[in-house]
Amino acid sequence: MDNCVFCKIIAGEIPSRKVYENEEIVVFEDIEPITRIHLLCVPKEHYKTIAELNEFRAETLGRAFYTLGKVLPSLGLQDGYRIVINQGEQAGQTVPHLHLHILGGEKLGWGK
Amino acid sequence: MDNCVFCKIIAGEIPSRKVYENEEIVVFEDIEPITRIHLLCVPKEHYKTIAELNEFRAETLGRAFYTLGKVLPSLGLQDGYRIVINQGEQAGQTVPHLHLHILGGEKLGWGK
Repeated sequence: MDNCVFCKIIAGEIPSRKVYENEEIVVFEDIEPITRIHLLCVPKEHYKTIAELNEFRAETLGRAFYTLGKVLPSLGLQDGYRIVINQGEQAGQTVPHLHLHILGGEKLGWGK
Repeated sequence: MDNCVFCKIIAGEIPSRKVYENEEIVVFEDIEPITRIHLLCVPKEHYKTIAELNEFRAETLGRAFYTLGKVLPSLGLQDGYRIVINQGEQAGQTVPHLHLHILGGEKLGWGK
């Protein structure tokens, strides 16, 4: 997508601090962290919400969780983390490209 | 798991307000909602975190997201929702059986 900031990060046209990448996903630091560690996991294919999942995208998303489960403990998140997916503007989705917030590095209450 | 509250809900041994169920997942109302609509999606297989995903569980989790994307708009969440997965006690995971919080029915800030 021409005007998608995440597509530009994936293409390397906008710099980011990537901490993990494979053929299907990229993980990088959020530029406006709300917790001590705040990463974003983005599938390389552009689509906005889980309502747009098809069989292929669903399998890719499942593999993304598998990969995150293996990788995140080595990224300072060995004590636990929260994964948040905001779907739609009412829920706080600001970029129309599916992304998983990964929050941690501190104790998290339900208010955060 | 003998002492798992979610396994007992799945088995029907503890009552719950189920809103969706298929062979792999069940979705029911959280008994301590923090938003106007607060559902839990639980895979029927007992495991605690995404670090314990294997290939089969990952595919099931991907299908769960596919299903939620199709079903949630009909459950009052047509304006958007947030999915939250707490992994480990530091992140607020209180039941050691993987579960997805589904929050919505109101505008959500980052503090919620």
